[in-house]
Amino acid sequence: MRIVSLKLFPIAIADPPIRSSYGLHAPYAIRTIVEIETDEGIKGISETYGGEGPMAQLEAARDQIIGMDVMQRMGLWLDFEKRAAEEAKGAAGDRSQTWHVPGENPMDRHTRTFAAVEIACLDAMGKALNKPACDLLGGRARDAVPFSAYLFYKHAGGGGLGDDEREDEYGEGLTPEAMVRQARQMIDFYGFEEIKLKGGVLDPDEEIETIKALRRAFGPKVPLRIDPNCAWSVDTSVKVGESLVEELSDGGYLEDPCAGLDGMGEVRRRLLAQGIPTPFASNVAVTHFRHIPEAYKLDAVQIVLSDPHYWGGLRAQTLLDHFCGVLGMGVSMHSNNHLGVSLMAMSHAAAACPNLHYACDTHYPWQTERDEVVVGGRIKFEKGCVRIPDKPGLGVELDYDQVARLGERYAKLPYRKRDDEAEMRKRVDPNWKRVLPRW
Amino acid sequence: MRIVSLKLFPIAIADPPIRSSYGLHAPYAIRTIVEIETDEGIKGISETYGGEGPMAQLEAARDQIIGMDVMQRMGLWLDFEKRAAEEAKGAAGDRSQTWHVPGENPMDRHTRTFAAVEIACLDAMGKALNKPACDLLGGRARDAVPFSAYLFYKHAGGGGLGDDEREDEYGEGLTPEAMVRQARQMIDFYGFEEIKLKGGVLDPDEEIETIKALRRAFGPKVPLRIDPNCAWSVDTSVKVGESLVEELSDGGYLEDPCAGLDGMGEVRRRLLAQGIPTPFASNVAVTHFRHIPEAYKLDAVQIVLSDPHYWGGLRAQTLLDHFCGVLGMGVSMHSNNHLGVSLMAMSHAAAACPNLHYACDTHYPWQTERDEVVVGGRIKFEKGCVRIPDKPGLGVELDYDQVARLGERYAKLPYRKRDDEAEMRKRVDPNWKRVLPRW
Repeated sequence: MRIVSLKLFPIAIADPPIRSSYGLHAPYAIRTIVEIETDEGIKGISETYGGEGPMAQLEAARDQIIGMDVMQRMGLWLDFEKRAAEEAKGAAGDRSQTWHVPGENPMDRHTRTFAAVEIACLDAMGKALNKPACDLLGGRARDAVPFSAYLFYKHAGGGGLGDDEREDEYGEGLTPEAMVRQARQMIDFYGFEEIKLKGGVLDPDEEIETIKALRRAFGPKVPLRIDPNCAWSVDTSVKVGESLVEELSDGGYLEDPCAGLDGMGEVRRRLLAQGIPTPFASNVAVTHFRHIPEAYKLDAVQIVLSDPHYWGGLRAQTLLDHFCGVLGMGVSMHSNNHLGVSLMAMSHAAAACPNLHYACDTHYPWQTERDEVVVGGRIKFEKGCVRIPDKPGLGVELDYDQVARLGERYAKLPYRKRDDEAEMRKRVDPNWKRVLPRW
Repeated sequence: MRIVSLKLFPIAIADPPIRSSYGLHAPYAIRTIVEIETDEGIKGISETYGGEGPMAQLEAARDQIIGMDVMQRMGLWLDFEKRAAEEAKGAAGDRSQTWHVPGENPMDRHTRTFAAVEIACLDAMGKALNKPACDLLGGRARDAVPFSAYLFYKHAGGGGLGDDEREDEYGEGLTPEAMVRQARQMIDFYGFEEIKLKGGVLDPDEEIETIKALRRAFGPKVPLRIDPNCAWSVDTSVKVGESLVEELSDGGYLEDPCAGLDGMGEVRRRLLAQGIPTPFASNVAVTHFRHIPEAYKLDAVQIVLSDPHYWGGLRAQTLLDHFCGVLGMGVSMHSNNHLGVSLMAMSHAAAACPNLHYACDTHYPWQTERDEVVVGGRIKFEKGCVRIPDKPGLGVELDYDQVARLGERYAKLPYRKRDDEAEMRKRVDPNWKRVLPRW
């Protein structure tokens, strides 16, 4: 089962003007669809970060990928891990994508590139063996994977431009009331039973008020999380932790309140000293296995938010799940704008992870049917969960017409990487800069 | 690929009178051959610990095993892990098989039972997919697995009884000179490039002298290790560490010098304070993933000696390998008396483990051609390594005539568990007791 062909399809998908501490999402998010084919004529697909950087890294690995046996992935993994370890030696800011949006963090480019290949290999393997991808990793821990309602403060607008502009499904969301409405709408449609709020956008007091409003609206049975992507100082992080003790209990968490493990460790100590047990999650300070020992020693992170797209794929996700379980840490999953191929990869990864007890993030509600690249259209959710289909591999096939259409759109885009800061200056405030901590 | 049949074949294999701090090996070691068959008529085999305990635990799981899909092993794993965790709660001496020979440690019975099933499943899966077992775990890190010359102090005698008595291949080994001879003979035949001495038998000064004699005979290119199975006090452990600084460098290690992580941590601190970096290995104080965090925090163990037979099989071995790699710990592999099925399972496990940089233990040289249960006879070593064969699954088939013959012998044995202490009293010293620390 050797790989004889590697195709990369850059695509652009309409994306609403949602906010984070990184800035503003552009009218189109960019992704890359990866397709391999084996010498037996079996195709395998994956979806990964978009733009020049991720594409160039995959191209650079083409010679290693072509000829590789889809079952023999260890060699590529070890080669990439070795290179990453060498680059990490003494690299400033190694343990952080604080200043990089996911997909643009140079420190995870090897695991990210590997993941795109590995997931396509597992898809092909699954098709060759007529088994779902999650069953190739030792068996599944669950048949349905829970996701959370991932709320974003947003400006009015549905994403896309011109003829391609989208209806503004969720409307403007810049007040507690609007965010409760956004949550209600998303939960009504998808059935999510857990909520995450992307913060770091408004004054912390307003974000605290949003969380409190969500709690009042949905009650303690719906866990709440807030993620300001490092926008706060240690003092502000402590203050938010103090203000949301009850709201972030019952399965909630505080995610990357401030930058760096040292800062998070300090916030943790100060909150614990007051008897506040709110756990901290991270997908910024911890982006690779090598960051976990320090996070663990400092007790800076209690829940690692993995992402199979940049942690190294499905098998890496199961390694992480096990690792964290042994250390008594929790696991959940980070997301970025994505389509159905990624959603299925994330679902298969999570299905194989028994220690994953927090609903995963997904941006899926922010994309639309018109931009889906899988045959049959958007993946269905049941009670906020994606059910692992009884189909081989990832369980989805590419709609090549859609891929071509989104590819044409990508070709016309003036940008080749995600830059939320530039977009913020362009559309909201010409003087905007990402400042950390902002509050 | 559901399991429709589970067969257990208890067998007895001739074993020479070798010594350890547990006592003396009996004339026959006992093992269990496990054979499953799937609804497609594909058989899978494994080899595990012998006697009533391990057999009864497999029998107790029969209802869970029958009907199980060989690819869906997670459910059984999680059920066993849950039970083990419950039993471990507050269990005295949980983190130790100090007082139990491997195979008789009640705390690892779940992972041990799981492993016997998992390895047979991977063998069956490999046969169904026409792939070697090690390639079902993400791909192999090596094609050949290095083992070490595992030296034992021994009395005269080749093992077996009556018509079944074996030639004494290695002769008596109770002096440094005899142990150098034993090593030479074993290395000449198998090509091993690393040496482990089972200690805890003679006065520590004599064992120190044996290591020094081995160093003189084989030079610094052959790493040396010594394993007294907790026979020493903290003070004695420190003394041995001080005496063998040079001899245990260059890839050597000191294994389970004294009982417990606290003791090993203290020895480690005292040696490090003198600038002695000799790493410590353990297969006694660390026998489950849940023991690693404490071992890591105390810096009591730098090399975990796993054993797929009681750590939970091949996948667990890869999880452990990764786990230790991330923590900067080393990995190698423990052994017990075994035949070719186990040797191949150990080899496949190690082949999938990139972080395994110390040659694995094996008792294989202590068994003979006449007792091998795999078709074609004994597994061949090349330069001390077992090469992963280009065959599906484990790469070996059962010789049923041999299994039957060794089964008849087992039926006639008066004992149903390994008891080295009783054997020691019977054959060497009627008043012998296992005392820890002995020195």
